[in-house]
Amino acid sequence: MAPASTSVYPAKQHFVATAQKLGATSGVIFVRGGDTIVHPDSDTEYEFHQDSSFYYLSGVIEPGYAAAYDIASSTAILFAKHVSADEAVWVGVPASLDEQRAAYGFDQAHYTHDIESVISALRPERIFALAHHSTENLGSAASIDTERLLDAVHEARVFKDDHEIAIMRRANAISSAAHEVLMREAKQGMNEAELRGRFVGLALAQGCSYEAYGSIVARGRNAAVLHYTKNNMALADASAMVLVDAGGSLSCYASDITRTWPIGAAFSAECRAIYAVVLAMQKAVIEACAPHRQWQDMHLLACRVAAQGLVELGMLRGDLDDIMARHVVGYFMPHGIGHLIGIDTHDVGGYPRGTERINAPGLRYLRARREMLPRMAFTVEPGLYFVDTILAEARDTPAVAQHIDFDVVAKYRAVGGVRIEDNIIITETGCDNLTTCPKEIAEIESIRATAYQ
Amino acid sequence: MAPASTSVYPAKQHFVATAQKLGATSGVIFVRGGDTIVHPDSDTEYEFHQDSSFYYLSGVIEPGYAAAYDIASSTAILFAKHVSADEAVWVGVPASLDEQRAAYGFDQAHYTHDIESVISALRPERIFALAHHSTENLGSAASIDTERLLDAVHEARVFKDDHEIAIMRRANAISSAAHEVLMREAKQGMNEAELRGRFVGLALAQGCSYEAYGSIVARGRNAAVLHYTKNNMALADASAMVLVDAGGSLSCYASDITRTWPIGAAFSAECRAIYAVVLAMQKAVIEACAPHRQWQDMHLLACRVAAQGLVELGMLRGDLDDIMARHVVGYFMPHGIGHLIGIDTHDVGGYPRGTERINAPGLRYLRARREMLPRMAFTVEPGLYFVDTILAEARDTPAVAQHIDFDVVAKYRAVGGVRIEDNIIITETGCDNLTTCPKEIAEIESIRATAYQ
Repeated sequence: MAPASTSVYPAKQHFVATAQKLGATSGVIFVRGGDTIVHPDSDTEYEFHQDSSFYYLSGVIEPGYAAAYDIASSTAILFAKHVSADEAVWVGVPASLDEQRAAYGFDQAHYTHDIESVISALRPERIFALAHHSTENLGSAASIDTERLLDAVHEARVFKDDHEIAIMRRANAISSAAHEVLMREAKQGMNEAELRGRFVGLALAQGCSYEAYGSIVARGRNAAVLHYTKNNMALADASAMVLVDAGGSLSCYASDITRTWPIGAAFSAECRAIYAVVLAMQKAVIEACAPHRQWQDMHLLACRVAAQGLVELGMLRGDLDDIMARHVVGYFMPHGIGHLIGIDTHDVGGYPRGTERINAPGLRYLRARREMLPRMAFTVEPGLYFVDTILAEARDTPAVAQHIDFDVVAKYRAVGGVRIEDNIIITETGCDNLTTCPKEIAEIESIRATAYQ
Repeated sequence: MAPASTSVYPAKQHFVATAQKLGATSGVIFVRGGDTIVHPDSDTEYEFHQDSSFYYLSGVIEPGYAAAYDIASSTAILFAKHVSADEAVWVGVPASLDEQRAAYGFDQAHYTHDIESVISALRPERIFALAHHSTENLGSAASIDTERLLDAVHEARVFKDDHEIAIMRRANAISSAAHEVLMREAKQGMNEAELRGRFVGLALAQGCSYEAYGSIVARGRNAAVLHYTKNNMALADASAMVLVDAGGSLSCYASDITRTWPIGAAFSAECRAIYAVVLAMQKAVIEACAPHRQWQDMHLLACRVAAQGLVELGMLRGDLDDIMARHVVGYFMPHGIGHLIGIDTHDVGGYPRGTERINAPGLRYLRARREMLPRMAFTVEPGLYFVDTILAEARDTPAVAQHIDFDVVAKYRAVGGVRIEDNIIITETGCDNLTTCPKEIAEIESIRATAYQ
């Protein structure tokens, strides 16, 4: 499929950004695209997903390509897969080399069988490559550095340019609209699989290539399984909620959105109470996201808002600072507040080299720990869950257990779990929320009412 | 996800069938399930599809399992993946060993960390394994044969039992219904992607796990690209047709169905003429499918019906036997008449060891060449296409060109291509068509008319 927009893909700009992060003034950057792989003992192909860094540097979604960039002369070179006449019967006649060069924004285009001669003609002293790409047939004269490019391209990918933000905004618009259709159509008695199918169908119909990740459609207690992917149970109980975590991938860019809403027309009292706390967590974090703040502080902010909310519900007790110091909320939100997002759903660059994870409940699984800067993209996805095994661990940990009223927990156990997840871009002054699906309680109940009219 | 039906999976029967094909009276059959794989430099998992032969022998769709069968004592042993308490937070608490043993129809169940001790305790002289499965940690005493099991399990898989036929029938019913929805809803101006999305959404909603293969939605001339998967162009021309080749995979069993129908409410004269020939080809083959007939003869029968039809249209000329001898129809149907289908879309066993392909247009790509026998499952998928490069080759081949009126071909070029594909099971007396989607011209036009009402 051609690039999603009619504009030229900014391949060269992405090479320039990568070379800047690399800090090299000469040498050649060389990257290979992915190839199709088949299931063992079968001719069934895995659905092809392009190598993420190769996509960033080329814009090519087809298998069998490569690309290079001569740093000193700032020359971006595309190596296209050659399609024989016999193959063209099966896959179609490809665009010409020059058409491909122009569409992806390269200075030159050749076929992959000319990689060695084209690279050799550049006479590079050094070739920067990625350790997971083959460096065979690049010519023998240059020294090949497979150490430095990875961090450089990861760092370049962390900062989204206007082209990338436009695609991510569109991926979010498509996926937000699909979430809203589910909210509008789902009825008690439907199966989780029907919701997943409806979501995927809508995302594909609007131009997404695939789910950015395995969708989670979890009703009631299933939402307490964080990566629930069975998606095969009936929405039996109108007083329960269903959690839908799903996003389409558009032109290789992920969206990652979660909504949780009642199976019936309105939230039960228990569901509404927990939902309100999670919504407050999410809104506080989105309000706080701004340049130069630390991502891990957003996690702690969410925990503090949760602690306040759960104290008000009588589920937690004691001093807020003590609750925070003992990571009590980590037993209810065992995952991190969010992650970088881009070509990969869990995008690269969350832990710059030398940054360590924090070993504490909840924080342990935080997928990014760094200063927020303009053009970074994050998910903001607080949640609260009632996971039996984790609650048992809390009960067995006196310093934590003293802050929890387990009788109140029992009252809310049937809620299962709530998560609300949007995708944001850090701006010069704060952040821009790409996700447009309703999440306010009144909005949701108004939409859910239409399902039963 | 649990097996689709509530009945016990016939794992042991499938081991018994495989041991019979193996012709061994002692020794242990050992097979491993697939593991999840991630995209390089990313934590994004490929959507997991179970190893096909492992699924056949176990019924397990989750990654990380293994299974064994002691031939002499007829003991089927499941090795389940052990899920730690920490992992259970993310993936849920699995069923107990005994529940899994019972659900899949095994005699024993253990965890995979006990493979070596359990296998060793059987004291096998020989272990039969598949060359693409790891044979590490099976105990050192036995000799390991990775040569003979592959053909045996492939041959066992060729013959579908009642459990398998029931699943394939259901997969066909789901996919047939989805095809019919597309036929009922598609309108001029829609995009191919909308049809693909609608199909996938309906298949997933009805319990399919994924597309059995990359769907093809090809309007007009796109249908002349045999493996067209871009699926991103508008259904602009009401006088053209759209070819939809799509099937859901249910409980690991593929369906593979193609329908071609007008974008407008009725077939154009040219489309109708070509469609009628393909329909005649398909009906003739389905009528002829029966035990002890050769599959390659079904291909030749389709070609003969096509030759007659195209002679009647004035597109071909000359003696039918000459047209057949010169494989003229192969320039219009460059693929085979169909293939075995089962767990794999292009299922195993098409060319039993020692059987060679026939190197002639069309026949070259025939995916099976063997005697039809009861319980074999095939696709029947004749097609006629107007592929410019192939027609140029025909024009350059005097023995072929003399039979073709290229002025008439030019008149039909805009048709692009037509394919009609059903899935059949060979019975004792003929065959049973699993595919229920309408294909008669009058039926299709009646359904298409509703799209514009």
